[in-house]
Amino acid sequence: MRNILWVAAALTAIETQPVVADQRSVILIIGDGFDDTHVTMGRNYLKGQAGQLLLDQMPFRGAVHVETVDSDGSPVYVADSANTATTLATGAVTQIGRIGKNAADKSVKTILESASDAGYKTGIISTASVTDASPAAFAAHVTIRACENPVTIRGGEKYGVTFDGCPEDLKENGGLGSIAEQLAIADVDIILGGGMEHFVAQYESDPTALDLAEEQGVTVLTEVDALKQQYSGRVIGLFSEDTMPVAWRGADGRIAESIERNWLNHIHQMIGSITQPEVIECEANPGFAGMPTMETMTKYALDHLSRDKNIGFFLTIESASIDKKSHERDACGSIGEVKQLEEALAVAMDYATENQNTLLMVTADHSQAAQIVPDPTLYTSLPIPVFSPGKIARIATPEGSVMRINYATNNIRSEEHTGANVPLFANSEGESILSPFMRQRDIYQAMMRYLEL
Amino acid sequence: MRNILWVAAALTAIETQPVVADQRSVILIIGDGFDDTHVTMGRNYLKGQAGQLLLDQMPFRGAVHVETVDSDGSPVYVADSANTATTLATGAVTQIGRIGKNAADKSVKTILESASDAGYKTGIISTASVTDASPAAFAAHVTIRACENPVTIRGGEKYGVTFDGCPEDLKENGGLGSIAEQLAIADVDIILGGGMEHFVAQYESDPTALDLAEEQGVTVLTEVDALKQQYSGRVIGLFSEDTMPVAWRGADGRIAESIERNWLNHIHQMIGSITQPEVIECEANPGFAGMPTMETMTKYALDHLSRDKNIGFFLTIESASIDKKSHERDACGSIGEVKQLEEALAVAMDYATENQNTLLMVTADHSQAAQIVPDPTLYTSLPIPVFSPGKIARIATPEGSVMRINYATNNIRSEEHTGANVPLFANSEGESILSPFMRQRDIYQAMMRYLEL
Repeated sequence: MRNILWVAAALTAIETQPVVADQRSVILIIGDGFDDTHVTMGRNYLKGQAGQLLLDQMPFRGAVHVETVDSDGSPVYVADSANTATTLATGAVTQIGRIGKNAADKSVKTILESASDAGYKTGIISTASVTDASPAAFAAHVTIRACENPVTIRGGEKYGVTFDGCPEDLKENGGLGSIAEQLAIADVDIILGGGMEHFVAQYESDPTALDLAEEQGVTVLTEVDALKQQYSGRVIGLFSEDTMPVAWRGADGRIAESIERNWLNHIHQMIGSITQPEVIECEANPGFAGMPTMETMTKYALDHLSRDKNIGFFLTIESASIDKKSHERDACGSIGEVKQLEEALAVAMDYATENQNTLLMVTADHSQAAQIVPDPTLYTSLPIPVFSPGKIARIATPEGSVMRINYATNNIRSEEHTGANVPLFANSEGESILSPFMRQRDIYQAMMRYLEL
Repeated sequence: MRNILWVAAALTAIETQPVVADQRSVILIIGDGFDDTHVTMGRNYLKGQAGQLLLDQMPFRGAVHVETVDSDGSPVYVADSANTATTLATGAVTQIGRIGKNAADKSVKTILESASDAGYKTGIISTASVTDASPAAFAAHVTIRACENPVTIRGGEKYGVTFDGCPEDLKENGGLGSIAEQLAIADVDIILGGGMEHFVAQYESDPTALDLAEEQGVTVLTEVDALKQQYSGRVIGLFSEDTMPVAWRGADGRIAESIERNWLNHIHQMIGSITQPEVIECEANPGFAGMPTMETMTKYALDHLSRDKNIGFFLTIESASIDKKSHERDACGSIGEVKQLEEALAVAMDYATENQNTLLMVTADHSQAAQIVPDPTLYTSLPIPVFSPGKIARIATPEGSVMRINYATNNIRSEEHTGANVPLFANSEGESILSPFMRQRDIYQAMMRYLEL
């Protein structure tokens, strides 16, 4: 019943190579939108200008060029999380929106599926819905990322954008169904994140993804306290309806704002005066209460996946809301998510130190809109008002300075992605198999080689 | 007469260590504003999405955190070229605008000065005026970068910003004089770039910087053809009045433009329609005729500095207009300057291959305003006009796609700098002395150790 494309290959793999060589494991942490600007924002806030992140202490660092194509195969210079996660998961360079499908809209086997077929254990963690692009691309195959559940696969609206759905992926058309339906029955040992609404979404009298998971004997967790207990067999944890609330926010929910311009400045921007937005203090987000941290989910998944010391695993962990909060111009939200990534990384580092043959990598899927700009402007001595045409967040840092973040890629409520190459960090296992400059498809190849797949 | 602070040290160094150990040399290429966005812009345009720059083939790559402080020593999260070049040159973290002076406004010895004192040959190349911040910080010491010549040291206006000048640096107050006056008599074997206007600027009947250089027996070159001939002794080449014209421009001089909005959209930005700017083709800049390329200057300087094989050298090469053209929202100008940097790098790489013990590094001083954004927007299916509040340049790439660059950090004619960490590239000599994550002051320390200073 599951991904029938790979059943034959899976059977072959199980027959010919039942034991995993060297018990090698891969932990791939993806910071969504975690480009050098967001890394620096995190460093400045969390460690101070003279400090360094845990990431900065990793022995390998490189840059990764992001590739995207359009329907003609022509280069596109800015990506989304769907096509880039697909490239990381499958090595295929593809179109924006694709999940586990190449540019010609054909399913491509993912590293997680290959690992599973070869006897490795597998896991997916995300602070978004587990049906969101980055987690989904490792274990599902649909034409458009929004086909997350049995209802949306028939079309609808996501982030205010209408979409046609994925007719080819409908089960009645011989497809594998929506992302949630595919994850419910996928051979993934542990899936943790948000997204319950996609697992209970029901089209007519069809079974929901939750029904499908339960039919397969999957243990479904919904409360953080459930993570205090071990379960055997497949586990799916869904701790929020869609994206999980983030750990931090701006005090009183403040995000970036426009400069306030007086009436004269509205007549002509070279005259009159402007008022800077007040500084924003970052604070704990009350909405985060009851959510498991990335650290907790990472600990739990590593325990689950490593219980049999003779079997290696492939685990992907997404810190989703660096990007999502940058779309929303919520700098504190992004920084709190970097903090979560760092805490999960600490757990993964400890694991990799104790368990040799663990390749630990951190990268981003694409770069993202935020910019750190001078506070005040470089041009303070000009006798005219100087201000960003976009929105700015003036973040008070613990070391007593102000870090000004500029969001100015468009005029709507959600910023654009950007097209810079992104960083790649790895532990010492990565030093021999990674290069200072790679493409996202090279990361897939390196992980496959490491796992001898 | 020159920098009296170091005379004692210089004499000591000459007495105790007259021969340079191992004939080690350092070539430090600084791409001004050459952050990961500008690197990616260059790669996409010059090599295509699936291609790689020469830079990308270097065996070492890391990230460099940029540090700046204000007058109280508090962290400032966005730098300028003066304070960052000073950090690279001296190891001191300092205030915006400082040249070879620390945060307390005291002169700090530069690596070039230390190298010269220890018997190394030394050189400075820039595509800006040689009195501009990045070249100046290696061999001059003034409080404010705009104190470039005997007139501006008394105050004036630069980039539309008025400044007070550098009273402490005035010769009549016991100072070393303006940047041009200091460079004219500095112990630097070769200085090539623009900036003639600063060498002929005259205050009352004082000698000009050019007068001072000629008094010292410096060979002053002003025409590109002069670089066909070898000269012995100190050489200063000044091939333009101020910043050298750049190699490329947008066709017809076009730079980034605002979206054209119809009258309805001016009433409310969620209605009406917008018109995208036409695509820009990059072309050779006619104004560049008669300028030496970075490649030519690099070849010439390497020949000059390496003529005695028993003496090593320190050479810094600045590609200045990646930043300057990004300030002006001229994406073609920045990309053409990246091409120049790559061509100079090829020359330096060949030299370092033929001459072991040559540490070759490329880095940026700070990150800069440009962003690569989607063309069209990610939100094409929204039923409202979506557009950047800033200026955009839609660049036609040779592989037939459009790379859209967004400039939206402020409302005046010159964009702001930004605060992301910047890349560092090095040849194999760097692998043992550089780390994946460094601060700019660590680069100074690494170069000093390499040269055993």
